[in-house]
Amino acid sequence: MFAEIITIGDELLTGNTIDSNSAFIAQKLTERGYWVKRITTVGDDVEDIKSVIREALSRKPEVLIIAGGLGPTHDDVTMIAVAKALGVELELREDALRRIEEFYLDLYKKGFIDDPEINEARKKMAYLPKGAEMLNNPVGAAPGAFLSYENTKIFVLPGLPREMKAMLENEVLPRLGRRVFIQKKLLAEITDESKLAPILNETLSKFRVKIHSSPKGFGKYIGIILFGESEEEIERAKKFMEEKGIRFEEV
Amino acid sequence: MFAEIITIGDELLTGNTIDSNSAFIAQKLTERGYWVKRITTVGDDVEDIKSVIREALSRKPEVLIIAGGLGPTHDDVTMIAVAKALGVELELREDALRRIEEFYLDLYKKGFIDDPEINEARKKMAYLPKGAEMLNNPVGAAPGAFLSYENTKIFVLPGLPREMKAMLENEVLPRLGRRVFIQKKLLAEITDESKLAPILNETLSKFRVKIHSSPKGFGKYIGIILFGESEEEIERAKKFMEEKGIRFEEV
Repeated sequence: MFAEIITIGDELLTGNTIDSNSAFIAQKLTERGYWVKRITTVGDDVEDIKSVIREALSRKPEVLIIAGGLGPTHDDVTMIAVAKALGVELELREDALRRIEEFYLDLYKKGFIDDPEINEARKKMAYLPKGAEMLNNPVGAAPGAFLSYENTKIFVLPGLPREMKAMLENEVLPRLGRRVFIQKKLLAEITDESKLAPILNETLSKFRVKIHSSPKGFGKYIGIILFGESEEEIERAKKFMEEKGIRFEEV
Repeated sequence: MFAEIITIGDELLTGNTIDSNSAFIAQKLTERGYWVKRITTVGDDVEDIKSVIREALSRKPEVLIIAGGLGPTHDDVTMIAVAKALGVELELREDALRRIEEFYLDLYKKGFIDDPEINEARKKMAYLPKGAEMLNNPVGAAPGAFLSYENTKIFVLPGLPREMKAMLENEVLPRLGRRVFIQKKLLAEITDESKLAPILNETLSKFRVKIHSSPKGFGKYIGIILFGESEEEIERAKKFMEEKGIRFEEV
């Protein structure tokens, strides 16, 4: 149940913009029981984006959310990089093109723009990686994309916070299923470290929980994250481990 | 002249805290002419931190700034991970210990704390990776560290923004030398792509500049960043390339 986030944009790497998108996404994923393990930010560069996507996929997260670089300018190259990372072509999508046409027509009718025509820059946003499901952008022109790669669900979203947030709520979270996992972070003090692994294994076999553990370095402390479908199941698993001799401090 | 930033903290991965540190660091590095290519955020986990440090070092940045996880709690494991990533031991540093003693004694005298004694948690902050230069923390207890690895300068700073900012200004920027590079981002329209590489090579041989180029995907656009020691040199290099047939748009 772990997730990664990739945010894209030269403005993030020059410090001109503080990356609030990744915190928003992280919060929503965490609320849903996902454990966000890494956030990576790169610039508007096809090769750099491709690399970070491939690296993220190699760690096999259940969910990978990519935000930024979907606009009409030449600097917006995220979809190209996603396609390259997955080894697929970009294709012009009629459904996306229609949505983009409607969006600009609407802006034109409202008097916000002078020309509703689909020029090359606008048309560019209708290209999605082959095999992608289009994600509707209710407040902007650029559609997002949903793809699967092995066991990873990949969501590609725009970088404008207003658009990203609307699409995360409307398009991403519903696709993550209704199952809400709960996670509890604990600090375990271990007097005999060799005892830990057998206790964790016994706990995993007896309860409907997942366990992440990592040594905390100084002293005999082990960080433990318990994931479960209910508070009760997590409490039962925790009590079982305590009976086996693990002393917990809550973090 | 490229740099990477690593920020550390579970609070960043749960979205409880927006990572403003990386933007601040990125801005300062950019002002100094560094091109920040990647920002990575991981949690308070020795193995995860070690991995991102090793990955960053494998890309051979000139500067790597690591911020977060230097405090007294068991969750603060950054120095352990830095030492592991570099294959060195942690060692108790007398200079650091004295500074930490003075810091708590000062807090005690001011009535902020009840006990100036150096307990295990406070002492822990005096452990630095072997071979590190201690970076003085003028507003907090935890010292930072400066290390070199191959051609990379590594700076390890605390995560509290007030402490990080003070140390970046006082300890990091002076160690990056006085040379201020200037960078200019351009978008080049190339009608004949095969012409580009020879023109770039000729430019590099004639002018005191560095050039980063990356295809922008749609159309015949190439993103170009020119690095130089003065505006004038960059302008001369740009003009030379224009005479050779490259048409630029400023980004």
